Amino acid sequence: MSLLERTALTTMAETCLLRRLGIDTGDERVLFLRSDSPICQSEGFSPRARIQVHVGGRDLVTMLDVVHGDLLATDEAGLSEAAWCELAPKPGDRASFSHAPSVESLGLIRRKIHGHELDDEQFDTIMADMVKHRYSSVELAAFVSACSGGRLSQREVVSLTRSMVAGGARLHWTRHIVVDKHCIGGLPGNRTTLIVVPILTSLGMLMPKTSSRAITSPAGTADTMETLAPVNLDVLSMQRVVERTGGCVVWGQSAHLSPADDVLIRIERMLDVESEGQLVASVLSKKVAAGASHVIVDIPVGPTAKVRTPGEAQALCALMTKVADAFGVRVRPLVTDGTAPVGRGIGPALEAHDVLAVLRGEHLCPRDLRERALYLAAQLYAFANDLEDDQKALRIVTHALDSGAAWSQFVTICEEQGGMRTPGKAAYQQPIEATAQGVVGIIDNRRLAKVAKLAGAPHVPLAGVALETRPGQTVSRHDPLFVIHAETKGQLAYAMAYVAEHPGIVEVKYS
Amino acid sequence: MSLLERTALTTMAETCLLRRLGIDTGDERVLFLRSDSPICQSEGFSPRARIQVHVGGRDLVTMLDVVHGDLLATDEAGLSEAAWCELAPKPGDRASFSHAPSVESLGLIRRKIHGHELDDEQFDTIMADMVKHRYSSVELAAFVSACSGGRLSQREVVSLTRSMVAGGARLHWTRHIVVDKHCIGGLPGNRTTLIVVPILTSLGMLMPKTSSRAITSPAGTADTMETLAPVNLDVLSMQRVVERTGGCVVWGQSAHLSPADDVLIRIERMLDVESEGQLVASVLSKKVAAGASHVIVDIPVGPTAKVRTPGEAQALCALMTKVADAFGVRVRPLVTDGTAPVGRGIGPALEAHDVLAVLRGEHLCPRDLRERALYLAAQLYAFANDLEDDQKALRIVTHALDSGAAWSQFVTICEEQGGMRTPGKAAYQQPIEATAQGVVGIIDNRRLAKVAKLAGAPHVPLAGVALETRPGQTVSRHDPLFVIHAETKGQLAYAMAYVAEHPGIVEVKYS
Repeated sequence: MSLLERTALTTMAETCLLRRLGIDTGDERVLFLRSDSPICQSEGFSPRARIQVHVGGRDLVTMLDVVHGDLLATDEAGLSEAAWCELAPKPGDRASFSHAPSVESLGLIRRKIHGHELDDEQFDTIMADMVKHRYSSVELAAFVSACSGGRLSQREVVSLTRSMVAGGARLHWTRHIVVDKHCIGGLPGNRTTLIVVPILTSLGMLMPKTSSRAITSPAGTADTMETLAPVNLDVLSMQRVVERTGGCVVWGQSAHLSPADDVLIRIERMLDVESEGQLVASVLSKKVAAGASHVIVDIPVGPTAKVRTPGEAQALCALMTKVADAFGVRVRPLVTDGTAPVGRGIGPALEAHDVLAVLRGEHLCPRDLRERALYLAAQLYAFANDLEDDQKALRIVTHALDSGAAWSQFVTICEEQGGMRTPGKAAYQQPIEATAQGVVGIIDNRRLAKVAKLAGAPHVPLAGVALETRPGQTVSRHDPLFVIHAETKGQLAYAMAYVAEHPGIVEVKYS
Repeated sequence: MSLLERTALTTMAETCLLRRLGIDTGDERVLFLRSDSPICQSEGFSPRARIQVHVGGRDLVTMLDVVHGDLLATDEAGLSEAAWCELAPKPGDRASFSHAPSVESLGLIRRKIHGHELDDEQFDTIMADMVKHRYSSVELAAFVSACSGGRLSQREVVSLTRSMVAGGARLHWTRHIVVDKHCIGGLPGNRTTLIVVPILTSLGMLMPKTSSRAITSPAGTADTMETLAPVNLDVLSMQRVVERTGGCVVWGQSAHLSPADDVLIRIERMLDVESEGQLVASVLSKKVAAGASHVIVDIPVGPTAKVRTPGEAQALCALMTKVADAFGVRVRPLVTDGTAPVGRGIGPALEAHDVLAVLRGEHLCPRDLRERALYLAAQLYAFANDLEDDQKALRIVTHALDSGAAWSQFVTICEEQGGMRTPGKAAYQQPIEATAQGVVGIIDNRRLAKVAKLAGAPHVPLAGVALETRPGQTVSRHDPLFVIHAETKGQLAYAMAYVAEHPGIVEVKYS
């Protein structure tokens, strides 16, 4: 055996000078080698093969692009931006290369694709390889799809959640009551977290909140918060902010809580798919890792929200509560109205403006956002404090907001996270107008979110859509229904072309 | 609306000079644009975005890699090899770019992921977009996975098959009886097609055979045939060969029969997954498109074959027969022994040598391959001619082989396909030996196939594994169990490292 192993190692003797090619391939780690280089010749590497790069004691699995011609010298190996940043080679570093080891756990992913149930240990193996970035996007997509459509049993969701927690950092707090909230999403503009956290922490509660960036929506809470303060805090910085202020709103991925979730989210975003079981595992793994004891889950229900019927919501609540039990976490699901977007803005900066208006107690703040935030804050306050009087809880949290305590607490949290800032406005603003007088009917959340995404959100923080009407409102000809915000002409045109193809995103019942 | 459409079109005015960068990214069509180019700035293109390239009235959807620095000039756009060959721009051609149109049928793929049943029209829509290469690999992987594990109903398999046929060419013959055979695979070396086709066509039958390249195995029939004659024939050339000789063995993809199958096969190969429903649709779509009337399907069953139990085989037979009924094709499934590889070689050229030995009637030809081929030829002969006497059929086909008629027919077919050739031997040959005296037990088909693939098969035609023993045979210490054939030291080492990690691929029960 040792003879065979030595044989395998000798093939790594050939080395190449690493070169940063400046090619940004997104998250994919790509290696570029010349087809006529000794290393490609002797190893028989072919395009899109998975190749392990070894440099200075570090390893990285990459995907190979083969170069014909003189983009590279024959003893040079190019790296994409993601691969270069990950390996961080020093000037003059030479690397050796080998076929990436076969990933044994792919057999387990195939078992899941074939419809078999997996156990704790099998999920652990898969998640460990996932966190080490050993799977290709194609393999991850197959896994996500194989776990969708009700193909994860409740036991599997518990296993998956446990494995996801085990793959990352885990926070422990000295207090017994640690609150958290989560919104299932699907409702553009529903940015209550940024209001609930300062309200409850101004009342002395502990709320170490991690949020995600957008999965399938035009903005995640982390995207919106980032227009107001840094959110890329590591777990130690996060802990420090919480110890000083009682709360935070940071990006879960930088805190390295449930890192497997972040790998899966990237694929779910590409597919625009998130199944029930994966959703529960995703939410609870973050909460368990953050050390939460009491969690409320906001489930907006509406024909174009993520959850479309009360029945779906109930099934999701039941699964979430049962899985949470396995981790000693108390969960209270709250079914809320998901028929129309919340607030005015859809997109990171536009939503941040709505949040600021509520926190500052502005007279023209979006009332629906304010009321949802107060309702959720009151529910969480009552749940964690075993208070049966909901009205009393509502009075307490309303006072925290109206007295300015929540606003000053929000400023403190932003400063502790690295400094507060205020987002600007997008370069292009294009109103979409009513073509005649009428009454606003149904608003298509999904298509409106799509418009915001085509305009550039969440990648472009200032991009998105501002709603200018609400269901039931009367509009005249040329009244704006919504305004598209974009930073480039191309993205504006792209969003407008979609609106032209899909009339009635904001329905107007003409009289 | 027309105003909005015009707005969208004006953004395409910016053009770039197309440049062949010589980067081979496999099947993926990649576009390279500079981050500071006017086009990237104005359109807000980001890495891995799907961008449509417009040049000389042609369009291609590509994936974007963003280039920082001077690999490209700001008014240049680079194309990967696949994108360049597809678009075939003329020197000096300038291209314009737009965000790729949203693929509406992705909503149908998501329906399938969520576990819903799709109808005829929905499969048609998906297959049409698939053949136009509108889906990313990640989206295709999610579709493949969503159709696996028993998640295609029988009605859906019929719909899928019909849609796959509709997406490509279809052959029509003047004769009523057109025979075909298919092997489910999973059994290394089971290369009977190259023997059955010349036998039956030498007997005057019509057998227009298309074969696939390897999906998850070290060699497909098309890969093996290619070491003996050209197989990349278009549908007209294929038709001409069949009209002259009665038969052919060509690569299905070049004949453009069921092209959607070829798109799916690429992903199934990446995942090493092929589900029952997809397998049936894949097989039957090719047969229906080739105009077959009578098909026998060889289903090898064994613990490490593709089909592992008689129960699985029966379910597959039932599904295949029922779906074939919907197309008026008669199918006879045959369950065969799949416990050990067939013949000696595993890998394109090594398997071709086995085939040649059988066709030439060599005394030391692999007897199991000869017997399987004769059995299948006899079954197909009897099935198509409504002959109840199996023994008589066997005598007829054996005579065709032993008389040299099949061999001379094979040579004729090869010449008609473009010229016969004989493959050589690989540069490196490494025996794996028995470590003590004993009796050969079980052979692990899957792992042996994996060794052949690590050695380079089917990409490297001469690479693979030659089995030197059969189950039940007595071996002494240092007797070779199998020999690894490789063209590079790297691939040899890679295959040997796998063998070292997995002892017992050929089990030896030591005495």
